[in-house]
Amino acid sequence: MADNSVFVGNKNFMNYVTAVVMQFTTKDAKEVIVKARGKFISRAVDVAEVATKRFLENQVEVKDIKIDSEEFQNKEGKNVRVSTIEITLAKKD
Amino acid sequence: MADNSVFVGNKNFMNYVTAVVMQFTTKDAKEVIVKARGKFISRAVDVAEVATKRFLENQVEVKDIKIDSEEFQNKEGKNVRVSTIEITLAKKD
Repeated sequence: MADNSVFVGNKNFMNYVTAVVMQFTTKDAKEVIVKARGKFISRAVDVAEVATKRFLENQVEVKDIKIDSEEFQNKEGKNVRVSTIEITLAKKD
Repeated sequence: MADNSVFVGNKNFMNYVTAVVMQFTTKDAKEVIVKARGKFISRAVDVAEVATKRFLENQVEVKDIKIDSEEFQNKEGKNVRVSTIEITLAKKD
């Protein structure tokens, strides 16, 4: 499944949408997981919505959404918490 | 259910966490729905994570997450799409 993940960050928005669409079309993936952390979570939701509603309408749907947190120490040794999201998109039967 | 919704925007982060926690504690709600649109989606996930993991650990869990889009016309008459999220938090049995 690792190959079918699209990690959303600060590149051009359409890069991520295209990556998702390509996984389903040219690579014939059954599932693609859109992942993001922190402030990029909003963007991951946009990517999932645009991919499923504009480009792959009636073909791909949101199958599952998970949220979680990661804790780590920053450079100053302070504990920092960051939220994560994983949106699983799947081909409709 | 409308009373049990917390709509996340640009107010102080802890306002929203407190609102969620208060619904479960002083108002004894069984479910609270954390909602947001656009760029505030990341913040809604943070609110849900902090409320369930720091303040209501072992008492409240994420029951369901829905994402969707709304389309509307902006002032210039252009169609604009905005993503939305609804995170349902529920008391554990």
